[in-house]
Amino acid sequence: MSGFTHFDAEGRAQMVDVGDKPATERIATAKGRVVMAPETLAMIVEGRAKKGDVLAVARLAGIMAAKKTADLIPLCHPLMLSKVAVDLVPLPPDRIEIEATVKLTGQTGVEMEALTAVSVAALTVYDMVKAVDRGMRIEDIRLTHKSGGKSGSFDAA
Amino acid sequence: MSGFTHFDAEGRAQMVDVGDKPATERIATAKGRVVMAPETLAMIVEGRAKKGDVLAVARLAGIMAAKKTADLIPLCHPLMLSKVAVDLVPLPPDRIEIEATVKLTGQTGVEMEALTAVSVAALTVYDMVKAVDRGMRIEDIRLTHKSGGKSGSFDAA
Amino acid sequence: MSGFTHFDAEGRAQMVDVGDKPATERIATAKGRVVMAPETLAMIVEGRAKKGDVLAVARLAGIMAAKKTADLIPLCHPLMLSKVAVDLVPLPPDRIEIEATVKLTGQTGVEMEALTAVSVAALTVYDMVKAVDRGMRIEDIRLTHKSGGKSGSFDAA
Amino acid sequence: MSGFTHFDAEGRAQMVDVGDKPATERIATAKGRVVMAPETLAMIVEGRAKKGDVLAVARLAGIMAAKKTADLIPLCHPLMLSKVAVDLVPLPPDRIEIEATVKLTGQTGVEMEALTAVSVAALTVYDMVKAVDRGMRIEDIRLTHKSGGKSGSFDAA
Amino acid sequence: MSGFTHFDAEGRAQMVDVGDKPATERIATAKGRVVMAPETLAMIVEGRAKKGDVLAVARLAGIMAAKKTADLIPLCHPLMLSKVAVDLVPLPPDRIEIEATVKLTGQTGVEMEALTAVSVAALTVYDMVKAVDRGMRIEDIRLTHKSGGKSGSFDAA
Amino acid sequence: MSGFTHFDAEGRAQMVDVGDKPATERIATAKGRVVMAPETLAMIVEGRAKKGDVLAVARLAGIMAAKKTADLIPLCHPLMLSKVAVDLVPLPPDRIEIEATVKLTGQTGVEMEALTAVSVAALTVYDMVKAVDRGMRIEDIRLTHKSGGKSGSFDAA
Repeated sequence: MSGFTHFDAEGRAQMVDVGDKPATERIATAKGRVVMAPETLAMIVEGRAKKGDVLAVARLAGIMAAKKTADLIPLCHPLMLSKVAVDLVPLPPDRIEIEATVKLTGQTGVEMEALTAVSVAALTVYDMVKAVDRGMRIEDIRLTHKSGGKSGSFDAA
Repeated sequence: MSGFTHFDAEGRAQMVDVGDKPATERIATAKGRVVMAPETLAMIVEGRAKKGDVLAVARLAGIMAAKKTADLIPLCHPLMLSKVAVDLVPLPPDRIEIEATVKLTGQTGVEMEALTAVSVAALTVYDMVKAVDRGMRIEDIRLTHKSGGKSGSFDAA
Repeated sequence: MSGFTHFDAEGRAQMVDVGDKPATERIATAKGRVVMAPETLAMIVEGRAKKGDVLAVARLAGIMAAKKTADLIPLCHPLMLSKVAVDLVPLPPDRIEIEATVKLTGQTGVEMEALTAVSVAALTVYDMVKAVDRGMRIEDIRLTHKSGGKSGSFDAA
Repeated sequence: MSGFTHFDAEGRAQMVDVGDKPATERIATAKGRVVMAPETLAMIVEGRAKKGDVLAVARLAGIMAAKKTADLIPLCHPLMLSKVAVDLVPLPPDRIEIEATVKLTGQTGVEMEALTAVSVAALTVYDMVKAVDRGMRIEDIRLTHKSGGKSGSFDAA
Repeated sequence: MSGFTHFDAEGRAQMVDVGDKPATERIATAKGRVVMAPETLAMIVEGRAKKGDVLAVARLAGIMAAKKTADLIPLCHPLMLSKVAVDLVPLPPDRIEIEATVKLTGQTGVEMEALTAVSVAALTVYDMVKAVDRGMRIEDIRLTHKSGGKSGSFDAA
Repeated sequence: MSGFTHFDAEGRAQMVDVGDKPATERIATAKGRVVMAPETLAMIVEGRAKKGDVLAVARLAGIMAAKKTADLIPLCHPLMLSKVAVDLVPLPPDRIEIEATVKLTGQTGVEMEALTAVSVAALTVYDMVKAVDRGMRIEDIRLTHKSGGKSGSFDAA
């Protein structure tokens, strides 16, 4: 099954050997968004200014989730992340843009950690606001930057 | 901060009291998709027939993630789920549709568990295929059905 | 070893049988404090008004820790908490008072969940502020209220 | 918010970048105590000699908790601890002194791991003895030694 | 795939629906053993009398592992165990017999929890003694008793 | 208690200091088996060919469990595994042979990770098949190969 490194020659799932890779600095950035009713976003923005900061709770949840990636994604390696930052920006009238950047010096990339941080931050926004808007959607979670490692850099919108 | 039940009157985040709610049967279904290059989907479908089943690994990851929801989403209640099912269907030329259904008899809904299962199943597809396609996107994660509980039923496309 | 219910007649540690206890509403409140240099408290209070809310992060950490109690304390039963609230109040010149209240309807009390929430909220304050004040102390963590269960209510200062 | 490294310039919580720090040997020691009724301490000491060793259970709980620190404290880095030791010493008439030492060679300190080990060991003592003494208090948890890292050594009583 | 309830009609793994089962008292007992060199067992027994109790550490590890069963076994339901007891008995010249009993009132059985407790207690014995005896074997882990639930009781040697 | 490195001179359990050991490549392989009724094995093999792959689920569970070893075994060090592979082979008429290989470059061996992977893979087979065969036994879990580290290599059948 050429190309899918998480299977061996017999098609059995495995955690691939990264022991021979050099330890280099790896950075990954992922993005995504939560789309909602304009009134819902207005409530979040208003609450932030006053009391009850949905975005601060979601940011923390995203950071903590990055540390749990190897526990969630079956074939991910456990990693000692050296940095995790998550940002949520309200974009009126109807969305919150989420971006996560993860960094480590190690033998494997941190794309999954960045994507997991964005996903869980988005889920946390949903959880905190679902009582007023069940129709929210989590959209467009993707990798936007990756550097370090032999496969070279990657950049996308 | 009316409407946002996860904050008290002072704007402090809290895990809300569900102790007085009756225990009823709760069901939630969520959906989402992973969009990729057509060749990537072809590889997944081919591998499934032969050896190395990406979708089976992602299904398991989604089921296990549903059980971790309270550990990931800060203000979610720990729940004793009575059923979790996750399904991934390839939709040529370029996508995999994911659906998760979660059920319990309890005092609070299971929307977050269904949404978390879909999200982690999608992330697992990404992880297993990322070596051949870094441009995949996770799209349109949303609640499509909810029943049980005093807020009534909810259905969406 | 009369009195220590976590040991059997031979002195072997065990998770005691609560299966025959009735499910009643249980509430527990615990308190504690972090004592620090007055300048440190001033920085926390100032940051809260402006940007960077140490107390909001610690509150969330306390809530999430309550859910992990059975994972941390070897002989605690896993419980489905119905409510967790944690509050941190700056008390000038030199301390932050912490209070946690936990509630469930079940067969065993939630004292350990309330005490764990206070402890981890206090540790989180320490973590966020340690770069400017290594001499902080966590003081006086204790149970202040307990109700429900056959052992009756308990109240303390 | 100068001094509080866990916030960025905008006041957003983050897991700070330690990737550029050199990997050096880091050691931290923390202390604390549990204060109780003299009869409670007598029961613990007697049980230890005979059967049912509260202190041995608490020691293990403390060691295991040190390994969970990054899961409990939101902005802590995951670390590969090279040593954890926890000691509990009964100090008649009414207290148990707890000390934890943690060591690693890495890019960030292990103060939080030592403080977490002490806190959870203390909570475990409370849990095992609470049926006979609800008035126990956990006191004076603090860092007593730290070495390694650019911020230099720290020693306190 | 008749008989294998963890697969649906299409052969997809699932966490089966137990929501319609009545909540009854469920008990399960499992056993197993660790076989080792006679000198190794002598060291363990001697240490137990003096200092350093391998069996007490393994007992705690087994109890704590029972609580993690749903996290380890992909299709197990999360359960609120009401009792866990683990016992390890040296059987000279060369083995330690392990027995675990788990109990709950609920909708599904606790066989996996009892078997997991025995397995992890056995692994912990191995870990603590491996520096002197790498040839140890974990043998004969099996269910010896099960009651409660519609499938009736089960007893084996 | 000479020989048992997990206790200090006073017999207190500890996580031993590996900080002075050199980081070398460590490999460990463990084996075990599940013995069952011949009809049970026939069902598993048939299901594998058609739909419902018990062995694929067990393999994933074993891989994921290797990553949780330090969480399960009280005195194990947290490790950054660089490879985990688990294989399950049906051996008619009545058994499934399990083998796990774990690798890392680090300061301590990975025997416990390999043994834990085998144990949890075996438990998962039991879980998925228990509805048709409660008499299964998990047999002969042992270390079969170890290399790297100053204690030298070890090989067994």
